Amino acid sequence: MMTTILPEVPVSLQPRELILHRNETVQLSGCVYKIRKMSGFAFVLLQMREEILQCVWSETFSGFSLETLQCGMSVEAEGIVVAEPRSHSGYEVRLQKIRVLSTPEAEPPLVIHNREVNVSLEIMLDYRPLTLRNERQRAIFKIQAAICAGLRSFFSENGFIEIHTPKLCAGTAEGGANVFRLDYFGKEAFLATSPQLYKQIMVGALERVYEIGPVFRAEKHDTSRHINEYTSVDVEMGFLRDFQQLMQLEIAMLAHVFQSLRQTCPAELKLCGAQLPACEKIPVIPFAEAKQLVSETFHRAITDTEDFEPEEERLLCQIMAEQTGSEFVFVSHYRSSKRPFYAKDTPSNPQITESFDLLFRGLEITTGGQRIHDYAQQVKKMRERGMDPAAFESYLMAHRYGLPPHGGFGLGLERLTARLLNLENIRSATLFPRDINRLTP
Amino acid sequence: MMTTILPEVPVSLQPRELILHRNETVQLSGCVYKIRKMSGFAFVLLQMREEILQCVWSETFSGFSLETLQCGMSVEAEGIVVAEPRSHSGYEVRLQKIRVLSTPEAEPPLVIHNREVNVSLEIMLDYRPLTLRNERQRAIFKIQAAICAGLRSFFSENGFIEIHTPKLCAGTAEGGANVFRLDYFGKEAFLATSPQLYKQIMVGALERVYEIGPVFRAEKHDTSRHINEYTSVDVEMGFLRDFQQLMQLEIAMLAHVFQSLRQTCPAELKLCGAQLPACEKIPVIPFAEAKQLVSETFHRAITDTEDFEPEEERLLCQIMAEQTGSEFVFVSHYRSSKRPFYAKDTPSNPQITESFDLLFRGLEITTGGQRIHDYAQQVKKMRERGMDPAAFESYLMAHRYGLPPHGGFGLGLERLTARLLNLENIRSATLFPRDINRLTP
Repeated sequence: MMTTILPEVPVSLQPRELILHRNETVQLSGCVYKIRKMSGFAFVLLQMREEILQCVWSETFSGFSLETLQCGMSVEAEGIVVAEPRSHSGYEVRLQKIRVLSTPEAEPPLVIHNREVNVSLEIMLDYRPLTLRNERQRAIFKIQAAICAGLRSFFSENGFIEIHTPKLCAGTAEGGANVFRLDYFGKEAFLATSPQLYKQIMVGALERVYEIGPVFRAEKHDTSRHINEYTSVDVEMGFLRDFQQLMQLEIAMLAHVFQSLRQTCPAELKLCGAQLPACEKIPVIPFAEAKQLVSETFHRAITDTEDFEPEEERLLCQIMAEQTGSEFVFVSHYRSSKRPFYAKDTPSNPQITESFDLLFRGLEITTGGQRIHDYAQQVKKMRERGMDPAAFESYLMAHRYGLPPHGGFGLGLERLTARLLNLENIRSATLFPRDINRLTP
Repeated sequence: MMTTILPEVPVSLQPRELILHRNETVQLSGCVYKIRKMSGFAFVLLQMREEILQCVWSETFSGFSLETLQCGMSVEAEGIVVAEPRSHSGYEVRLQKIRVLSTPEAEPPLVIHNREVNVSLEIMLDYRPLTLRNERQRAIFKIQAAICAGLRSFFSENGFIEIHTPKLCAGTAEGGANVFRLDYFGKEAFLATSPQLYKQIMVGALERVYEIGPVFRAEKHDTSRHINEYTSVDVEMGFLRDFQQLMQLEIAMLAHVFQSLRQTCPAELKLCGAQLPACEKIPVIPFAEAKQLVSETFHRAITDTEDFEPEEERLLCQIMAEQTGSEFVFVSHYRSSKRPFYAKDTPSNPQITESFDLLFRGLEITTGGQRIHDYAQQVKKMRERGMDPAAFESYLMAHRYGLPPHGGFGLGLERLTARLLNLENIRSATLFPRDINRLTP
């Protein structure tokens, strides 16, 4: 029999709306998070979408036995909203009726209803489907979602268009060994390590573009700062005056994100004990000077003149925080030898590039820079590096038929989230992290 | 030398803002899209971010030779804004000065500055970096970005939280042969065909979630409706009353998206000649009846009682459009044998499921349904299908420790875009499509 469906979004009352229903009877749905028995009554904490809600069971007003309830149950509850200053929301709900929608098969093997889940990171991740139900864990990923929302509203307001580039590629953007390979109908394919080449191509079509999506790195690093699949926030813009404009853009972006977090996630930030950093101005220091500064300040020998060691990034941030008060620092002009083939060299000194990294609380969270837009220059640099321009035919098509001066940057979403919330390990800011030892859950 | 960077977003004046600068001198940046020589003057069309702008060169007011300009050049221009009713924007800019920022290496081998790029789909895709610069092609992907923005604002307003689930997985959500495999540090990994299992897990933590991201299908189909990597819009919600709620939710979502497209993309929709469909109400017909209806109406024998043939989907849409005026139709209650292991069977008839597809203008764009939330039921259905529940340990952890009744759906972004804009081939709604024969650009 043919019927008709009309549009409707299922409504479920949330804790922050209870203020509108004081002394009224309301319907709620949630999962039983914790039951705290007192004498003659009990607190029943309900995990709701927005936050944990304090409900009260009592023989005097609840028309059901407390034994009906168990942790992990999904229920529909009916009760009266009562002002209660000691409750987090300022209200509690006196339960009158309950309808059990689903019952768990087993008791959880971990305690998840305390402020923190007190287990090792390994256990935390092994039991992700359970540990993510913890209130603080939920807050981390609500904040991460709000970061993405803040980024997108910034991009949208400033004319950046969202793109979706392929993750299955015939070639590799950055070359090298750190690429996952697979068989694609008899051809060799690679998983994208970055949308780099595509976002440059798209500058020729849409001028300002961005993408927030997964990238894949087959790096064998097993550190607190590496995962093998992460969410990359990629930005690219045409008609770039110089690469300083990209740093200005990134600060404006971060300021917008932090401002929006303040508005949308105050409770979650508090739960995570997070202090949002100031970013009205950020110091910039050239790479070579930064190396020197760290070396001199801490009497460290420079062992690698081309790149930072992680410890040097931490120390540089420490110096900058002391000298300028900034928890961010841009490091500019990385050496050409350490930057990819598409990086634009500094005209006055081709040993260095018009590039930057952004360090935040000791960790590199962004790499960016101006790109080569001229076809002949790009082909020349490829040849100097022993690369075959023919392998990049479609990429170079963008340059060949004209590209404006352009540049952009990539930001690691998990790294930003982790540093923002002072999580020591990037895995703590990843729902289901992938590393050299972990492919589940 | 240490310096300081302040936040700033580079501003570039766009055609729709010219109305504020009538008779003023303005600075513009863009790529030369087309030069149309007339007698004594020339139209110079500039490809700008927002749209193509008509500029005028003339010996009488332009302080440079027309020969300075060539198609594909990126330029900064200075000129006076003059009202011109015959121009698309209502204004044109009389060029006074020009600064060339970049010059193409070669003339394009294709004509891209006409309304349509008149080449085969193959050529269109082979030359994507160039053909995407065509105004209509740009419009397609601006609309696609606006669809995503509309989806996200709908989700955000209704309490759905954005998640990022892994694309590298140890197991497969749907099983079967249509999965890309790769070596992951000595282990076998699969590319996600869907975030299905993760979004169900996340219902236990965040209740309402969504993800817009890539999924990968190693299907050997080479049709106008299949690509091997596509962007899936995945939604999942807890405390579901019944699967009809999901169809209501999807209509509300589509209505919101179309409304936002009307506001944000009127010019692009016009360029694409697109008519947005009505979706105030959508007919629902059970699968078995739909098969019967098509068979009877068109005197077709039913060869496959379990699934639709593509032609049947087209015919069903044709019948529905005639009978109800709706360009959409929900088909419900697909057979259990054709739905995945997590689909909830209809209590009164376990041969069929609490599931639906949404067809739009002849094409299936969504699959959804209620899921099994009970641990024992889920394990039982797995065993009946010869699956090993132990291989799904972390997925089943969600059920084991309690999951609310829930369900959701997946929507193919490229399919929706293609049908909305009446593009015959889904590849035309994909920036860089991947199919059995294509891995570049």
